[in-house]
Amino acid sequence: MGLGVVGGGVAAALLGQQDEISRKIGRPMILKKILVRDPDKLREPPIPADLLTTNPEDILTNQSIHVVVEVMGGTQPAAGYLEDALSAGKHVVTANKEVMAKHGPELMSLAQDNDVNLLFEASVGGGIPIVGCLMNELLANEVHSIRGIINGTTNYILTRMANHFTEFHQALAEAQERGYAEADPTNDIDGMDAAYKLAILASLAYHQHIQPGDVYRQGIGSLEAKDFRYAKELGYAIKSLAIATRENGAILARVHPSLVPLDHMLAKVDGVYNAVEVEGDLCGRVLFHGLGAGREPTTSAVVGDLIEISRKIGADGRPTPMAQLDGADSIRPIDDMVSRYYLRLTVADHAGVLAEIARILGDGNISIASVLQKDTDPATKTAEIVITTHPAREASVQESLRLVAGLEVVREVNNLLRIEE
Amino acid sequence: MGLGVVGGGVAAALLGQQDEISRKIGRPMILKKILVRDPDKLREPPIPADLLTTNPEDILTNQSIHVVVEVMGGTQPAAGYLEDALSAGKHVVTANKEVMAKHGPELMSLAQDNDVNLLFEASVGGGIPIVGCLMNELLANEVHSIRGIINGTTNYILTRMANHFTEFHQALAEAQERGYAEADPTNDIDGMDAAYKLAILASLAYHQHIQPGDVYRQGIGSLEAKDFRYAKELGYAIKSLAIATRENGAILARVHPSLVPLDHMLAKVDGVYNAVEVEGDLCGRVLFHGLGAGREPTTSAVVGDLIEISRKIGADGRPTPMAQLDGADSIRPIDDMVSRYYLRLTVADHAGVLAEIARILGDGNISIASVLQKDTDPATKTAEIVITTHPAREASVQESLRLVAGLEVVREVNNLLRIEE
Repeated sequence: MGLGVVGGGVAAALLGQQDEISRKIGRPMILKKILVRDPDKLREPPIPADLLTTNPEDILTNQSIHVVVEVMGGTQPAAGYLEDALSAGKHVVTANKEVMAKHGPELMSLAQDNDVNLLFEASVGGGIPIVGCLMNELLANEVHSIRGIINGTTNYILTRMANHFTEFHQALAEAQERGYAEADPTNDIDGMDAAYKLAILASLAYHQHIQPGDVYRQGIGSLEAKDFRYAKELGYAIKSLAIATRENGAILARVHPSLVPLDHMLAKVDGVYNAVEVEGDLCGRVLFHGLGAGREPTTSAVVGDLIEISRKIGADGRPTPMAQLDGADSIRPIDDMVSRYYLRLTVADHAGVLAEIARILGDGNISIASVLQKDTDPATKTAEIVITTHPAREASVQESLRLVAGLEVVREVNNLLRIEE
Repeated sequence: MGLGVVGGGVAAALLGQQDEISRKIGRPMILKKILVRDPDKLREPPIPADLLTTNPEDILTNQSIHVVVEVMGGTQPAAGYLEDALSAGKHVVTANKEVMAKHGPELMSLAQDNDVNLLFEASVGGGIPIVGCLMNELLANEVHSIRGIINGTTNYILTRMANHFTEFHQALAEAQERGYAEADPTNDIDGMDAAYKLAILASLAYHQHIQPGDVYRQGIGSLEAKDFRYAKELGYAIKSLAIATRENGAILARVHPSLVPLDHMLAKVDGVYNAVEVEGDLCGRVLFHGLGAGREPTTSAVVGDLIEISRKIGADGRPTPMAQLDGADSIRPIDDMVSRYYLRLTVADHAGVLAEIARILGDGNISIASVLQKDTDPATKTAEIVITTHPAREASVQESLRLVAGLEVVREVNNLLRIEE
């Protein structure tokens, strides 16, 4: 089985374990070409120069290459390469979450048309076999919900903030030092990376194309150490959750920091670990927990896909029929969501303030579950109030919050977080 | 796709969801016959009488039946039925852990010889897709270890004992009342059920037939509420773990109560939930958590297998080539295991007792990590001592314990438990 690799990432691992992988997939796997940007870059371990190329045609039109592994990332030119490879009748294994989130369904149907496989286990959750399980083992289920921690960078930062009450910028700097966050961490911090992954999982679970743009996003940049302190006092951890739910023919997909009860399994997912909980009508809640990124977990997923392709070639080469993308649910805006909320405000430290706020919330049909008064500052004559609500409608909470922010006694609306029970 | 079902368990669920399942598997699935012991038994929901039979030949020689689902349990006649079905060229889906543990590899090779599939996701872990993941998605990995809580009955009992300091017999009675334990709970309590399941998982992970008899077993019957109290004080939960490890070409498989650090994910698996942690060279530690039993989770697994078979029939009907059973590791006796231990003794309450015990342990090269002196009883002039050790060899611990038990000052050796770090 001839292999072409697009992107240098796991190429060395595949090359170094060529014999091992050949044994595992049950036929000789020969890595023929690796497409890289800079063939002269020093690589450790080194890769023989004749395997490297800067010309995509060396892979895409190479008759001895049967499978293309793409690990370069980004939308273009990667998406074009995948399209060309599939059109040329080559099987494709990709780790590219952005391409699969944006173009997955059309690429999958292109693969079916060309009688080849397109597999993408490595695109979500690293070494956690969540993509395969949604495509195969759990396919018997109507999926009610997916709840996951699918971005290791933000989970590392939030774990630091929770355990050491570190402030956000320091925790981010630590993550960067340790290689868990990129120099430009925007995609992780703002939830874009998680939105890509959630779009992939939700598309698989609900059998229709959920676009990354369909996913509501709130980043973790507004969190402060004190939010973790207050949350803990209330019995919650704060995690950035990626959540997709289907109710009454409408799908809601969202990525945002959430208060999670301390005894829930997702509250215990620490550091760079990932976890995904799938709730199905038959299986109930199944949770997957493991390393969401890194060279070895990615290799586990990529080689797992290669084994599957090799077995298909061993049978008759034809791809497994995919589940039909016959879902026709609407996308529900977050405005319609009903949730409990956590609200932190800085207010003037005098009597009657809470009454004013409570009146506005009451007018919006928002019922208060608890109030904590915190951190009175005699110098600025301000205090902090943390309010949790009973279930309320998002749009109504947002509108009431706008009114609360306009009160003379309210200095600042510091944070609005959703509570997941 | 014509279906025959052996055993009444999930038949009603399959029948009731026939249209739904047909949609999911992508072709009409028609349940043709159900083999039951007593066709006159009242069934809720009722099953049409013409579908019921007491004659296995109605299924095994029925040309219109392409797939046999077996959920009757027990070794015989179930194993014979499976053999006959496979030999007759029928695909088989089974939930039978005992048959798969004892005869899995020969049945799998019979399936390959007859160009049909034998799938058994429901045999371990209910709705958790652990069988499929070991056979497919995680196949790229050399598996270092499997650690699991795979018997819901014992986990329910241990959770009761831990949370309410209930004694064993009361917790067992509660489990029976709630339908979580059978009238004769021996197979669960003694670890036989978990040993079957571990044998299946270890055989898949290590590509060789690990027999149930290869699995060391210690039941949970000797545990007392105070063990949970002391364990908690030391920072541990007590869980019945099923563990398979491979080291230096030898496999050790065992089922026994273990002390697990309170912050480990497995310590947080409560009630009838199951969890399995697979540690692979590439994927690292991946944990699966979900409902290990029940009609819906079993249906999730069975229908998942039916979908896979239907897809195979859709391609060319030929089964996926299985991973070769080419493992040739030896089975390591537990005597050679090195572990930390928890030891609870009832001793005479006077000075010098600990010195005598410590001397024997020292002679056996067993180093003490901690000692708790507990529950002095003035009436009987006895006290309890809880000792934890540093890593020591099992055989040496057992031998030293025999000597300790012979000391005049030692009234009783109450419990010896292994500590998993």
